[in-house]
Formats: sequence, C-alpha cells, structure tokens
Amino acid sequence: MKTVKTAVFGASGYTGGELLRLLAGHASAKTVWATADKNAGKRVSEIFPSLAGAADLKLRPSDPKLLPDGIDVIFTALPHGNSSRIMKRLLKTGAKVVDLGADFRISPTNYKKWYGSHPCPELIKTACYGMAELNGEKIARACLVANPGCYPTGATLALAPFVKMMAEDRVTIDSKSGVSGAGRTSQPELMFGEVNESVTPYKVNFHRHMPEIEETLASLRGKKTVVDFTPHLIPMDRGILTTAYIRLKNKTTANALAAAAEKFYKNSRFVRICLAGKYPSTAAVRASNYCDIGVAVSRDGKTATVISAIDNLTKGAAGQAIQNMNLMFGLDENEGLKGVPVFP
Amino acid sequence: MKTVKTAVFGASGYTGGELLRLLAGHASAKTVWATADKNAGKRVSEIFPSLAGAADLKLRPSDPKLLPDGIDVIFTALPHGNSSRIMKRLLKTGAKVVDLGADFRISPTNYKKWYGSHPCPELIKTACYGMAELNGEKIARACLVANPGCYPTGATLALAPFVKMMAEDRVTIDSKSGVSGAGRTSQPELMFGEVNESVTPYKVNFHRHMPEIEETLASLRGKKTVVDFTPHLIPMDRGILTTAYIRLKNKTTANALAAAAEKFYKNSRFVRICLAGKYPSTAAVRASNYCDIGVAVSRDGKTATVISAIDNLTKGAAGQAIQNMNLMFGLDENEGLKGVPVFP
Amino acid sequence: MKTVKTAVFGASGYTGGELLRLLAGHASAKTVWATADKNAGKRVSEIFPSLAGAADLKLRPSDPKLLPDGIDVIFTALPHGNSSRIMKRLLKTGAKVVDLGADFRISPTNYKKWYGSHPCPELIKTACYGMAELNGEKIARACLVANPGCYPTGATLALAPFVKMMAEDRVTIDSKSGVSGAGRTSQPELMFGEVNESVTPYKVNFHRHMPEIEETLASLRGKKTVVDFTPHLIPMDRGILTTAYIRLKNKTTANALAAAAEKFYKNSRFVRICLAGKYPSTAAVRASNYCDIGVAVSRDGKTATVISAIDNLTKGAAGQAIQNMNLMFGLDENEGLKGVPVFP
Amino acid sequence: MKTVKTAVFGASGYTGGELLRLLAGHASAKTVWATADKNAGKRVSEIFPSLAGAADLKLRPSDPKLLPDGIDVIFTALPHGNSSRIMKRLLKTGAKVVDLGADFRISPTNYKKWYGSHPCPELIKTACYGMAELNGEKIARACLVANPGCYPTGATLALAPFVKMMAEDRVTIDSKSGVSGAGRTSQPELMFGEVNESVTPYKVNFHRHMPEIEETLASLRGKKTVVDFTPHLIPMDRGILTTAYIRLKNKTTANALAAAAEKFYKNSRFVRICLAGKYPSTAAVRASNYCDIGVAVSRDGKTATVISAIDNLTKGAAGQAIQNMNLMFGLDENEGLKGVPVFP
Repeated sequence: MKTVKTAVFGASGYTGGELLRLLAGHASAKTVWATADKNAGKRVSEIFPSLAGAADLKLRPSDPKLLPDGIDVIFTALPHGNSSRIMKRLLKTGAKVVDLGADFRISPTNYKKWYGSHPCPELIKTACYGMAELNGEKIARACLVANPGCYPTGATLALAPFVKMMAEDRVTIDSKSGVSGAGRTSQPELMFGEVNESVTPYKVNFHRHMPEIEETLASLRGKKTVVDFTPHLIPMDRGILTTAYIRLKNKTTANALAAAAEKFYKNSRFVRICLAGKYPSTAAVRASNYCDIGVAVSRDGKTATVISAIDNLTKGAAGQAIQNMNLMFGLDENEGLKGVPVFP
Repeated sequence: MKTVKTAVFGASGYTGGELLRLLAGHASAKTVWATADKNAGKRVSEIFPSLAGAADLKLRPSDPKLLPDGIDVIFTALPHGNSSRIMKRLLKTGAKVVDLGADFRISPTNYKKWYGSHPCPELIKTACYGMAELNGEKIARACLVANPGCYPTGATLALAPFVKMMAEDRVTIDSKSGVSGAGRTSQPELMFGEVNESVTPYKVNFHRHMPEIEETLASLRGKKTVVDFTPHLIPMDRGILTTAYIRLKNKTTANALAAAAEKFYKNSRFVRICLAGKYPSTAAVRASNYCDIGVAVSRDGKTATVISAIDNLTKGAAGQAIQNMNLMFGLDENEGLKGVPVFP
Repeated sequence: MKTVKTAVFGASGYTGGELLRLLAGHASAKTVWATADKNAGKRVSEIFPSLAGAADLKLRPSDPKLLPDGIDVIFTALPHGNSSRIMKRLLKTGAKVVDLGADFRISPTNYKKWYGSHPCPELIKTACYGMAELNGEKIARACLVANPGCYPTGATLALAPFVKMMAEDRVTIDSKSGVSGAGRTSQPELMFGEVNESVTPYKVNFHRHMPEIEETLASLRGKKTVVDFTPHLIPMDRGILTTAYIRLKNKTTANALAAAAEKFYKNSRFVRICLAGKYPSTAAVRASNYCDIGVAVSRDGKTATVISAIDNLTKGAAGQAIQNMNLMFGLDENEGLKGVPVFP
Repeated sequence: MKTVKTAVFGASGYTGGELLRLLAGHASAKTVWATADKNAGKRVSEIFPSLAGAADLKLRPSDPKLLPDGIDVIFTALPHGNSSRIMKRLLKTGAKVVDLGADFRISPTNYKKWYGSHPCPELIKTACYGMAELNGEKIARACLVANPGCYPTGATLALAPFVKMMAEDRVTIDSKSGVSGAGRTSQPELMFGEVNESVTPYKVNFHRHMPEIEETLASLRGKKTVVDFTPHLIPMDRGILTTAYIRLKNKTTANALAAAAEKFYKNSRFVRICLAGKYPSTAAVRASNYCDIGVAVSRDGKTATVISAIDNLTKGAAGQAIQNMNLMFGLDENEGLKGVPVFP
C-alpha cells in the first residue's frame, strides 16, 4: 500500500506533538514536514525530548509556499484564525486537510459571534465535521475535515445515543479536563503551582466549545438545543471526563440505557460501553483513542446521567484526526491508533 | 476564660488528625484525650509525624468508660454506626458531643434506608444539625450536634441562598472531591497509582450523602426536593468543588445572584462570595474554614450555575465541628479557625 | 514468521498489566494465557478497564499444571519466592522463561542474606541476567532470563560506561521513583493522601535492589564495589530518575563523558544520550522502553554526576522483559517496543 | 506589647503571599504596606483569592519614597539585584530589613562571580546571615538580615551537626524541590503539563545556591568545602527534601548520629530529629516552619546519609524570615509560626 505523506502545521504544541507521536507508529503514513513558527529552525527533539529518535524532523515556518510537493494530507494544529487564513492555499496543493483548530467546526454565524470575522466563511460549508462515529461516510469523501473540539467530542459521544429520549431542548454538561487541552503556551493560570491541588470552573456558559456542542446536538435532534456548560480544570495532564444530565421523556433503567448505547455504537471500534453500575475514568483511556461511556438513572427514573471519558489529546484531538485521515484515505480506521491505554 | 477540655474519638483518621491540628491552635480549648482503636497505645506522632511536638497525646481505646473526668466536649470521628452505639454513655458524662459521622444527620427513616438499623433512633431527634450558617442559634443550645457531611456542606451552602428561586423540586449537583474525604483506611481504589491522572464518578445517585442534602433542601424549601447527585474523585488531597444547576423561576443575572448570596451570608464570616465572572477554586480555601461561592447564569437566563469550594477536612469536617463547639461554648465563632488558606 | 505464544503469570499487578499492554501491540507475539491467583476467574478487563477490547483474557490460577501446550515463553511477574517455587516445572514444559521477580537476579549467597532461603539455588546459576545492553548475546541463548530490577536498570545503565573512570570502589546512588514500582497491592503508605505532595526516602542503604546493583558493578569493574543507595518515593505514577555520583580518577569534562556514553551505547537503540548541559526527565521516556542519560562534572572536574531516566514499568520491567524475549527468539530487538514516549 | 508594623516588598510572588499569610496570624505584628510592581493598584485578594478577608491590602509600587512613616520591619522578597538597589534607602527609614533575596547572602566575591556586579557590596558585610539555629544572637542585634535560600536552609540544617565528622572537604547534596521555589512568574518549564508526572535535575553543579552552601559549610568547618549539588524539580507545590552524603572520619551508627543531631538542636524548637530508622517527608512539615532531619549510615559505617525536609516557602523563606523578625524584635521565636503542619 502506498504510504500517505503527511505534514503537521503547528508541531510544537501538545496536539502537534501527539500527532507526531501517533504518526510515528502508523504503518501506512509518514510525516515528512513539520512546522512551528516560533521554533522554526529547531529540531522536533529540542522541543519534545520524548520524540528524539522517533519523529525528529526539522521544524519549518508555517508558510504554505514552502511545502514540498507530494504531500497527501496536512494536519493543521494552529491557533484559531490561522489555518483559515492559509486554507485555500493548502487545499490548492491537492492535499487533503484535517484542521484541528476551531476555524471550520461551526456555522459562519456562530463563528462570527464567538470568534469574530472569518477570512473565508464560504469554505466552512465545504468542510466536513470530523466525528467518525456520526458521519464516517462523509468524512471518507471530504477534502477538508474539521476535527471536533475536545469538549464537544466527549459531550457529543456521550449524548448522541440518547437524543431521542430527551424530554427537553436543554441539557446540562459538566466537564472536567486536564491541563493539556489548554495548550503548551505559557500562561500564569496553567503553572503547576496554580493548577495542582485545585479544581476550578472557568468560562461558565461562555466557553467557545459550547456553540459546537449545541450545533451538533441540534443537528442530531433536528431542533434547537440549549446547553448549560461548565468546564472545569483539574490537576492532571490528559483526559476529559464529561458528566451530562438529561431529563427523560420516559422512565428507564441504566441497563436499558447501556443497551441503547451498545446498539448505537455497535460499529464504532473506539467506543466502549461500561456495564450498568460501572463508570469510566480518564485513566482507562489514557493515551488511546477510546471513548468510554457509562450511564446511570435517578432513583425516580426521570433523569439520566451519562458519563464519557476520553484522552483530550488523542480521541479529543490528534487521534481523532488520524482516524479521520484513515477514513479519507481508505485505510483501516484504527491504523496508527492501536495503542492500548497506558495505565497507570 | 476557662479552657474547654476536649476529647477526640477516632484520632487516627484524616478527620481526627485535622481536629488535632486545629485544636492545637485554639486559644480556649485543649485536647486532653484521643482515641484510636487499632492504634491504641501508640502516640499521635507515630500516626501523624506532622503532629510531633504539637498534639502528641497517647492514643487510647474508644471506650467511654476510660474517659477521664472533666471533659467538656467530645468529638466523635468514627465509622458510621460506631458513635451511636456509645452516644448515650458519652452524653451521660455531662460532656457535649459533636458527632462527625453520619449517625445523627438524617431522619431515622432515611438512616434505616441508607445505612440499616440504628441503635438509638430516638437520639437522632435530639441532635442539632450543625450547619452554623443555617441554624447557629440552635447549635448554641445543643448538647449533641450532628456535624454535616462534606458533600452536603458544599452543596447546601451553595444552594441555600437560592432555594426560593427554584422553578422545580429538583436540582442537579455535580461534585468533585479530593481523596481525603474517603478517609485514611487503605483501599485499593485510593492508591496513588489508581487516583493520580484520573477523574471518575462513583456511586452516581447512590451516595449516602444524598438523603442528607435532600432533607436539608426540603427543610429550607418547605417541600420535597429531589437531587441528581454525581460525586467524582479527582487527583488531589483536599477540597470539594460543587457545581449545582438550578432551573430558575424568573430570569436573572449573575450580579443579582451574587448580591443575593452576599445578603444571605452577610453574617457568616466563613462564606466568601465571588464577584460575578469570578469562580471559586479549592486552592483558595485549602486548610481553612472558608466556603467560597461563585455564580453564573445561562445566556437565556433560565438556569443558574452555583459553584462552591470548601476544604473537605476543614469546613467539610473538623473546622465546622470546631465552629460548632465555639457556638456551643459561647466562644468567638472563629476561634481556632483563623488560619488563612495555604496557597499554593 | 511464527507467532510466539506467551503466558503471563501474575497478570493483575502493574507489571503484569504492562506486559499485556505491550504484548497486545507486538507483531510476532500473542498472549494466550494469563494468571492471577486472587483474581482467578475474572477477566483482565475487570482488573484493568484500560485493557478492555485489547488483551481481555480470562485469568487463571498460577498453577503450572494448568498451562496449555505450546507456550513458547512464560513471563513470571510474581512476588519474590513464588516463581522459583514453580520454575523447574515451568522450564520442563519446554517454554523459555523471563522472570520479572527477584528470584534469579543475585547470587545464592546474597539471596539468602537479603531474602532468605531459596527453593532452587542451583537454578540461579543457569539464569542469564537480562540486561540486553550488557549481555545481549548470552540472553539470546538463555532459557531462563532474570529480568533486572527497576532501580538496578536505571543505576546500572547510568554507570556502566564510566566504571573504568571510578577513582574509588564506592559510588553514591540517589534514586527517585514513582509509585507504580511498589506494585498494585494496597498499602497504607501508598495511598494517594500519603504520597501526593510528598517526597520521602525509604529503606536507606537497605533496599533489596542494592546487592543487585553491587553485583553488577562488581562484575563490570572486576572488583568489589560498594553502593550508598537512597531510594525516594515521589508523587508520580511512572518513572525512575537516578542520580549517581562518581569520584573520578582523572579530571574530565561533561562533553567527554557524553561522548564516552555515546560510544558505549552506540549499538543500543533504547539508550539516548543527552547533549552536555541537557538532562533527562522521566516525562521524556514515559511508557516507552528508552533510557535517557545525561552527565555533568563538578567545577573542579573531580566528580561526575550521571543521571538516567527510565519508565520503571517499561524499561524497568515489562519492556525490558519483552526486549529479552525478542533476543531469545531472534526477533527484532524493538518489536513491540516501538511506542514513542507519551508526553505530556 | 507594641505591635510591630511590617511592610512586604514583592507581595505578589509565592514568598510574598506566604509572608502575608503568616503575618496575618502573628499576634504582635501587623502588615500595613505591601508592594508589587506589576500589580500595583490591585488588591492582594485579586492576586491571591486565598487571602480575601485576611490580608487584603492595596498593592503599591516598590518605591521606598512611598513608604509610610513608622514601619518597623521591611521584608524584601524581590528578584535578585532589586533589593540591594534600594536597601540603603530602606535602612535610612529606620526600619530593620529582612531580605529574602540573594543580594546579601554571599560574599561580594561570590556574588560577582555568580550574579554579576552588586550595587552596594559594602552593605553585604553589615548583613547578618539569618539562620537562627546557627547564629540567633547575631540576628537579634542585626538591622539587615539576609534570609537564607531555600536549598541552603535544608542542606545546612542537615549538615551542621555533622561537620566535625567529615573525612573530606567535600559533600554530596541531592535536593528535590517542589515548584513553588521557582516563583510565581510564568515560565514554560513550570507549566503543569511539563512538571506533572516528571522528575528532572537542573543546573547541576551550577545552581546559585551552591556558593551559599559552600560558604556556610566553610564557616562551620573552618576550612574550604566543596559541594556536589544536584537540585531536582519534582511534581509538588511545596517542600524540599535534601539527601546529603558524607564520608565519615570514624565509623558510627545511626543512633549516634541521631543523638548528635538531638544535642546540636536541643534549643532549636523548629528542628525535629527522627528516630534512627525513620525518615522525614515533606508532607510532615507542609506549611510549617519545621525542619525534620533523619539519618542513616552505610552498612560498612563509612558514610552517613542525612536527610532533611522543609517547606521551602515557610522554613525555606517566609517562615524563617518571620523567625528572624521575632529575634530582631525580642518576640517569642515561634510567634506567628505556631501553625501545625497541614497533612494531608
């Protein structure tokens, strides 16, 4: 089989590093180009000593003009606004693109409201939302895939099997994330001394991943859906645990919910459903592309609690991006993603 | 002023250790007796090297018959069922008691349902629920105070100012706790290797602190209230962050909610209300008796998100118990509790 | 190529879980049998939810009689004394064995002194010490390999290139280990609340890995060597950082030491030498089979400081065991061990 | 007793925050002035939510001209070079000064070598090295006290009782520090994602605290002493554990060493000596002014291993500074420092 030649734009962040890590173990892909504006000129191993001897390219500027010929797929892991500025030129090279930023995930209207003006809103409509469990077939045909955000990945996978059971057009989503989701750029509130031994909410009902969740749920339900969303920062490196609370149309049991989830995801090899009474943990999916899902119901049977666990850098970012690449190139969906979760 | 002579039953657990730590700094109290069944005969400093030179009593069996004369107050920090078995004898000594276990917190009916049979259910009715911010005057007159559970402390303090605004008889409570709330007894799931780098829910809608929260909310609201409750274990030593979601009768703003909370707690020196847009963190209350509260509303104004942070061992257990002792003995409410939060 | 059929004895501990994790990704090996005495009858995924869908065997009793035919290699990850009791019967099946315990690592004399009586001391002499970087050729011919201890792996790899430069028959070794090296069995001192936010030494000059380090250094140097050894427990899951202090025969520079190490390990694909002025970290080798080594010299050039970082579960246990298996079966040395370190 | 009026220069760093925390609980001192250049104009509680309601001054520029009259003691917790620039003006106000930076700790020669030119080298000689356990009487008479560095505090307290037993003019010091010693200023290598689950050495034989340790040991021993010093960063907030290795003149036992330490520190209320066979941990001194010391000897009796644990922000910085203030003003040495260690 032909090897897929990949380029990683934004290789010095945590997501970029995770892409390089996973691609180094991909049997049918090879990373031949990596960029990082501030660190251009350095080698990857200077930025990521962990990658010495494994994925040690020289880092280049994130300039499409410098791209060598013959790149099959470009992963863009850049701050929002940056990939859309260069997206037309990237696509013009003939490469397919998986964008790991926010630029092509939500409607032009919401993008403008939550982020500001977009350099090429018309491209948004051509992008395919890259959640393979929901629209794998479209992804297979896409040239530009918008890789979902980390919180939306956990929340949507948790809720998707149950949208028809919702008694209301509203859902409560309480997420707990490790710090790597916030990126590698130095920020005072992400210093070890600030994060360790602390848990705190942030951007309550105000996080930019909210409209993405609302749009996807609306699309699945066929009607507007409001989300009450509280992300929390917790003292760990990797992982998002999402606890979602649904008011149910009809009373049900945890067993019934677990069975519904099993059925919904019967063809999704990266989703594992916990038995009723068992719950997922971020430790059990660490460094893997799995999403584990568990369910509970209230004693009066009127509400469901759905919990999902993902590794935000893998299933919530780089792993999902590679899963999308696999679909786009007709490869086995789990190629490069067979790594078993690292525990402890 | 006369010194209050205290005894601590169950001094080898984390709560017992915190009692000894705080009492060592109390100007008007002195610990003269400490018990720990398994460790009877050892000195406190063998169990808690941190307390060497500070609170270094010899540990005795938890037998009321051995109690010396002249004890003014007994703190019982024992596994549930153990303090109720000896409570009549403890009270007969003339000492007042603050019970930090579950034995006297909830109604006999709920106790039977959630814990099993109770050795002296009639005593439950004589106990005063020890949440000083809600019923300080009753506590001042009580002989037996049931110190609230850690989760109920965070949840109730968060919700109390807002119970009249609730549109429903139901509230969603999502709590995140450090490990010390689970006690010091060795358990496989509390090993460092299991807890670190992981977040996981447990006992979803099934935790024994649920009926306590429901009873207190029912009492404040004057009507039955259902709680959807998910406790989570997160990788830190101390602290509980509680995120509560309320459906509102009337649209409101975060500023209005913050003002309501300020008013409600204007005489409560241990409750600090965050400005709208700011949120509490467990780091900011660590090792102190503070409860910090922050609020947010949804963009459509229909739901409120209330967040509280406490240190589970201090405000959620030993600190609150000493606060209760202070009220019971006419001492300044914050005597022994002036310690400023330790950060980082 | 024929698939190597493997059995894992002691599959419910952290080392056993790591073996299953790594073997699941090995192209030429397949785990067909796994044992765990206390958990016999359960499935692996009940003990390790992380391994669901990946290595989900049923756990059997650790009884050699139950072993199916056709096993090529047995990994024994049992408490010391347990594998030696059954070793003859295991070897009699015709399988090769990699023992991850302490039973065959040190001389009968030292075993008796540090552990007590040994059921088959004569077998010790037939065992090959499984440090591939030092005696790969012997390992290739061995039937019974004694996999090195985690501390000895880090310490020996750090010191081996420099033994000829030592001015004394003594070396100071200061090691810092995450908790997983202490195993998964519940112990009070390994609870999260005890380990987190703490660093502490233990078994100073008294740890059972000391004689193993001393024997290996003596063998490399051709003379008795004394070790001052202080292991420390630090609040992390995985990783050992070893800082070794050597008095030097001749003044030298960090560059010269780095060059010597590069030369010594030029054929060792799992050892990475840091440039002078750079130092290893456990984060950069996490979940991988790498050993990173860095060097420094004192300002007067009379002492060298050598630092190594390994993942105690991988290079310090299961990874090294698989490396040994690869050599024993003529496989590529890094088969199953290509996983790039997981960072962060 | 007259209240000592204090000013804290550099109140927005971790050391400044710890000074405010401890001074808030000091019966005979009151903080009336606090500065923080970048955060001037804000209130302390905006920088440290933990201090809301406790020590909530308005922050001023670090300009001596703005100081109000009547300040008795000034704590300067500023980046090196900053306090020496204003020291003459501070002393001219009549206030005594405890400098928590590096400006007055070491000889002018070493300062120049390790830091560069000093604005007022002549002042260095007038400063008293503020290690109360070694020269409390001088401190009591001093106007300017140089508060020891955090590493030197742990290392010197560990070694001081044993300097006469040293067989060599050289000692190996291996220190493990939490992150707060590196300050609160945002730095890439101190981000949670970089520090967590990692241990790494830094500035091996190159840390600026080395000359301070060497000067103090030389002064205690009466002869030049060389230190091999490796500081390590470990994933915790607070605490330094120092493991020092001494070659002994004469064979000895752990019991004898422990007895020698007990005798040496018999008048030092903040030093606790562990029984032979027990070792200190940073957890047991957390947030307190204690230094715990434990000892071991090699099996051949030729080397001693001495281990000390301190909280770097308390005994290693702010606590020690207040201890010095107490001596300078004739107060009880432990006033404001009675806080029992917070565990867990």
